[in-house]
Amino acid sequence: MVGYAFMGAAHSHAWRTAPRFFDLPLKPELAVLVGRNADAARDAAHRMGWAESATDWRDLLDRDDVDLIDICTPGDTHAEIAIAALRAGKHVLCEKPLANSVAEAERMVAAADAAAQNGVLAMCGYSYRRTPALTLARELVQEGRLGTIRHVRAQYLQDWLSDELTPLTWRMDKAKAGSGSLGDIGAHIIDAAQWVTGSPISGVSALMETFVTERPLGGDLVGLGGRGDSSGERGPVTVDDATAFTARFDSGAIGVFEATRFALGRKNAIRLEVNGSKGSIAFDFEDMNVLEYYDGSNDSRTSGFQRIQVGEPDHPYTGNWWPVGHGLGYEHGFTHQVVDLVGALADGRQPSPSFADALQVQRVLAAVEHSATNESRWQRV
Amino acid sequence: MVGYAFMGAAHSHAWRTAPRFFDLPLKPELAVLVGRNADAARDAAHRMGWAESATDWRDLLDRDDVDLIDICTPGDTHAEIAIAALRAGKHVLCEKPLANSVAEAERMVAAADAAAQNGVLAMCGYSYRRTPALTLARELVQEGRLGTIRHVRAQYLQDWLSDELTPLTWRMDKAKAGSGSLGDIGAHIIDAAQWVTGSPISGVSALMETFVTERPLGGDLVGLGGRGDSSGERGPVTVDDATAFTARFDSGAIGVFEATRFALGRKNAIRLEVNGSKGSIAFDFEDMNVLEYYDGSNDSRTSGFQRIQVGEPDHPYTGNWWPVGHGLGYEHGFTHQVVDLVGALADGRQPSPSFADALQVQRVLAAVEHSATNESRWQRV
Amino acid sequence: MVGYAFMGAAHSHAWRTAPRFFDLPLKPELAVLVGRNADAARDAAHRMGWAESATDWRDLLDRDDVDLIDICTPGDTHAEIAIAALRAGKHVLCEKPLANSVAEAERMVAAADAAAQNGVLAMCGYSYRRTPALTLARELVQEGRLGTIRHVRAQYLQDWLSDELTPLTWRMDKAKAGSGSLGDIGAHIIDAAQWVTGSPISGVSALMETFVTERPLGGDLVGLGGRGDSSGERGPVTVDDATAFTARFDSGAIGVFEATRFALGRKNAIRLEVNGSKGSIAFDFEDMNVLEYYDGSNDSRTSGFQRIQVGEPDHPYTGNWWPVGHGLGYEHGFTHQVVDLVGALADGRQPSPSFADALQVQRVLAAVEHSATNESRWQRV
Amino acid sequence: MVGYAFMGAAHSHAWRTAPRFFDLPLKPELAVLVGRNADAARDAAHRMGWAESATDWRDLLDRDDVDLIDICTPGDTHAEIAIAALRAGKHVLCEKPLANSVAEAERMVAAADAAAQNGVLAMCGYSYRRTPALTLARELVQEGRLGTIRHVRAQYLQDWLSDELTPLTWRMDKAKAGSGSLGDIGAHIIDAAQWVTGSPISGVSALMETFVTERPLGGDLVGLGGRGDSSGERGPVTVDDATAFTARFDSGAIGVFEATRFALGRKNAIRLEVNGSKGSIAFDFEDMNVLEYYDGSNDSRTSGFQRIQVGEPDHPYTGNWWPVGHGLGYEHGFTHQVVDLVGALADGRQPSPSFADALQVQRVLAAVEHSATNESRWQRV
Repeated sequence: MVGYAFMGAAHSHAWRTAPRFFDLPLKPELAVLVGRNADAARDAAHRMGWAESATDWRDLLDRDDVDLIDICTPGDTHAEIAIAALRAGKHVLCEKPLANSVAEAERMVAAADAAAQNGVLAMCGYSYRRTPALTLARELVQEGRLGTIRHVRAQYLQDWLSDELTPLTWRMDKAKAGSGSLGDIGAHIIDAAQWVTGSPISGVSALMETFVTERPLGGDLVGLGGRGDSSGERGPVTVDDATAFTARFDSGAIGVFEATRFALGRKNAIRLEVNGSKGSIAFDFEDMNVLEYYDGSNDSRTSGFQRIQVGEPDHPYTGNWWPVGHGLGYEHGFTHQVVDLVGALADGRQPSPSFADALQVQRVLAAVEHSATNESRWQRV
Repeated sequence: MVGYAFMGAAHSHAWRTAPRFFDLPLKPELAVLVGRNADAARDAAHRMGWAESATDWRDLLDRDDVDLIDICTPGDTHAEIAIAALRAGKHVLCEKPLANSVAEAERMVAAADAAAQNGVLAMCGYSYRRTPALTLARELVQEGRLGTIRHVRAQYLQDWLSDELTPLTWRMDKAKAGSGSLGDIGAHIIDAAQWVTGSPISGVSALMETFVTERPLGGDLVGLGGRGDSSGERGPVTVDDATAFTARFDSGAIGVFEATRFALGRKNAIRLEVNGSKGSIAFDFEDMNVLEYYDGSNDSRTSGFQRIQVGEPDHPYTGNWWPVGHGLGYEHGFTHQVVDLVGALADGRQPSPSFADALQVQRVLAAVEHSATNESRWQRV
Repeated sequence: MVGYAFMGAAHSHAWRTAPRFFDLPLKPELAVLVGRNADAARDAAHRMGWAESATDWRDLLDRDDVDLIDICTPGDTHAEIAIAALRAGKHVLCEKPLANSVAEAERMVAAADAAAQNGVLAMCGYSYRRTPALTLARELVQEGRLGTIRHVRAQYLQDWLSDELTPLTWRMDKAKAGSGSLGDIGAHIIDAAQWVTGSPISGVSALMETFVTERPLGGDLVGLGGRGDSSGERGPVTVDDATAFTARFDSGAIGVFEATRFALGRKNAIRLEVNGSKGSIAFDFEDMNVLEYYDGSNDSRTSGFQRIQVGEPDHPYTGNWWPVGHGLGYEHGFTHQVVDLVGALADGRQPSPSFADALQVQRVLAAVEHSATNESRWQRV
Repeated sequence: MVGYAFMGAAHSHAWRTAPRFFDLPLKPELAVLVGRNADAARDAAHRMGWAESATDWRDLLDRDDVDLIDICTPGDTHAEIAIAALRAGKHVLCEKPLANSVAEAERMVAAADAAAQNGVLAMCGYSYRRTPALTLARELVQEGRLGTIRHVRAQYLQDWLSDELTPLTWRMDKAKAGSGSLGDIGAHIIDAAQWVTGSPISGVSALMETFVTERPLGGDLVGLGGRGDSSGERGPVTVDDATAFTARFDSGAIGVFEATRFALGRKNAIRLEVNGSKGSIAFDFEDMNVLEYYDGSNDSRTSGFQRIQVGEPDHPYTGNWWPVGHGLGYEHGFTHQVVDLVGALADGRQPSPSFADALQVQRVLAAVEHSATNESRWQRV
């Protein structure tokens, strides 16, 4: 695993936990954690359960005891590491967004396609797909319970940048992060919307905004919030604080998307509502164990959004955990990602989302940026 | 009063009820109800408490016992009636949207301006402003409790057209209604957003869609839903079924708006969320007695959206009704509209929203339509 | 109508409004409002739409133009007025609780039975029954959708006495009110529970408590809250502040009831949850236009409490109002009460709840008080 | 660890995970898992991460590499194992309820007291205390933010026995489980209520009911639900299906408690509401990352229940996990239990809840059973 911050902790937990609750066809071994600072990497490896640590990810490429490389670094390094890993015959799990540009992402897909010829597989870490309630939402759409999809309404609302003194981190640096609200959190709802509805976005019209253009230096790499020193040095915010766009899907549905880290009071509100001709679903990650489902075929006297507590044995993933109502958390999505990835590797199947799926998201991100800098004019994906 | 369908019933109730719960400086008399069909108008007048009925609104213009004309007809007739009434020295309350075009609306504003010189006043019926929770939202913004406004998130979601067999009515006829989701319900959230935040929308980028292009004939004038006959004749839907747009406000805030009658399961979800640098508010008409308020100055251990039950003596309007928690309904907004209108008339003050305020909404509607037919390109208001 | 405070305002509104929205077989005329203070009664009659006022309810008994007497006074006067009215051949609508003791209530039932022989009818004003969502709940139970009822969970939570400086009013005076939380609000949930489930309570075990035993004098008659003067004179609270009891129903279900005016933050939380072998319903008056319904026959993948927005044409009462989602308020229950009462009178049918129904509630109240003063020992009703 | 079913899985996860997210002063080693069936125990040990397995818990007593015995078996075996373990100098973590009778629990407390002289410590596993939102609730009470506590309203609602064909398991066998809804789930809300308010229950009046007296045989040991064979053999249910009781606390507060596994639609609704003179809190485990808090000192225009998303760095436990809004699950309570237990052991402090704390819960359970079999008469604890 390369990287050991927020995502590294979540991924490590998943690798450790998946075989405890699921019957995996292969047994993951946590071999090497890579980080630039040797001491910090060693401590992290120890804490997170990795057998060794290293300071250069290239060292992993030649090791026979490394079958898969899990990339948890900022987006500017994804392409280089992933392509090298795939060429070295290592399976790859790469955090999202796949890359910082469509060009990089295309090269990664090419590398993945080539590797797949040799049975070497690549997956991108859109882990929210594995939130059981969202997986259930996709199942309901696939079963035709929503009929023809007409509306997608997606929001990813956070507030940790609302305070002007929250310090600069790599997430506000275009060179490292590629974009701000768009790539960091908007990418999640784009992926979720396309995946749940089973239809790609075909065009967008977008608006992007940076509310706070300078911030105190000195933010660390790990957490999200914190509070900087108002008197000290400042640096420029080079990414978007908020992104909003309308969209059309191949299926004929229309969508409204919004991603921001300035929605004061909203902490991690990943909201997805889909309205079809026969039914609707609504989800909010702040109440992540619930999927609301409106069944239009019910009689009008009793119809209403059904608050499904996702946790039954016949719900996705949850039969391996606790009885319904006992609640899963954020990290379970990562554990389920490991379960699905390991299952695909064992079978020699392409895991989902593939790099090609992630490239489609990347193309939407690029179209959004293009429209936002061209008077919001409609931009085909 | 001209018109006696859905809006006519709501307005009549308001005129009858306002003096029972509020000390009005003038006592409304319900003089004449006008409808084209003499029998139906007579029955409606009797049922709704009007002293007389008539079949031509022009008859009202010369009557000395008519001081105010309340226009509850479809939008294509607003301009003619309102301008004639104002010229005849009658105060006017005109249902929204003010007109079916900016040109009509501008003529109405001119007429209102001229009439105002003579103390004759005009108001447009954006009655949702008088929902106590929304009025409270505006007060909190005006008091500075939200700080600098950054985000406006507005939705008006209904589902009564979701069924393809819901029959055609005037609301789906561009000639009568001007537009569909945009003018009928989108206008409400545009007005609410501008009014609550105190800042006009300066530009938009829009998308409009008609999902169902033909519907059974035979819908009546009054209700919203119903179900037509699938085998019978059909007519064309000439308006938009759904509208979505991004917006910028003069204040620097950005907005996302969506209006649709195809959000299956949502009945009358007028949702407005505003995020500022110091606080946020969130409202949903489906829970109309509640305003959610996030006070960013609370300590992080206890901060969270506060579910305010609007109904205290120091909340707008509610001190004249029941104790808090006992709940007001849809029609109370109309009653409060009468209270404010009568108060303004008694004082010779301009009631709010003025025709000029309503013209600003009309300009936003026009900009939305323009952008939607021009590749969503940014359109200044 | 006798009395013109909180209940008088609600009843007057109902009498005025019912014929405007419903086709009533008889047309109510608001003849005389009675209040002890002549000036105040005259003002109230004028404001509330009554033709005349009077100071002695006995004056109504001989008037030919009075067909029905609506009793909105504190409980200690109900028996005397109702019995005299019934004997004088006047129909009676009497506010709840029916009386301050079982003995009084029994005499009222005897008078009602005698009057019924002559076609003179009596009804008790448990108006919350006519909240459409609660009426729908009863319909679902009657249709067998809940199966065998096992649990009733009823709470009536308010907080207007939580402040120790809220002044004394008649509602805290045992001589006038009979009891405190028990009769004022507990009576409502007892009636609602028995009515919705269709089964009487057969026994109880109870606990009653007075948290604040003295309060400032000087509270007025009308509202609920207010704040007294901490330095002034105080008087004793002679009723219960809170009541809790367990219960058994004839049907075999068990119940848990709680009524209090000290649940800080709860304004008018009338909550009723009923769990059966096939389904459940849950209601909270603070969200009064919603009934939650759990259909146990749904498949486990999609089952969840369905948030029914009560307002469809096929929901009780609501077809005569606005489209679904537009929201009704507290006063609509009173209007529906008038509709049902007038309908029964026109048909010569016994309106519901009868005095006998209200006597059953009274017996539960008495059993609760008896148990609470006898070590909570089980008390049969 | 003794036992490897539902609780065994949760405890194992906690032992494995606690050192990964918290800096523990001692490093837990998962030494031996004990289960009666050798093969099943071996498999479970492997899956759950234990180094060895064994079939007799007595084997643990002499092993030097076992410092602590974690008892996850049904209640009838707790006393024997715990007492033997403490006498053998092993620290003990014992699942709740502490025992099946007060007599057993008293012997366990005596053993714990004796062991404590030698620095051997015992803790009872009321793990819901460690749900961060409930821990925060206790902190707010302790800080005086609720003022004088007047009301406690506690429910534990499940529905997995609602189906009459759900088969018999040890949880419906009085000999093994001691009681049904009372000890299994009622014990949790008793502990939570006493712990959050900081005041013991002093007396109760109770009602207990068994709705379904016979069930199909053949239920397995692990999960909760399942569906038996309606045609096969049946066995008697010897415990309560539902328990309700009113209570008084030493502090003067009154309480209403209800525990049932027949509340159709409620999956794991552990609800606790506390109303004080200055504030209120409300919690529902089905939305476990949220605490609702009503601050009575807010001005009436903006006061309302604040929906606190518990997950900030200054909330209990959550600073070691993900950013706020990302959500924790059921198992985190067990992990926090390990954190607190290990911290106490390292310091030689008594962990909480002690066996004495758990005995107090046991006394309430006994008082409830006594009252329920004595006409609900008040029973002092």
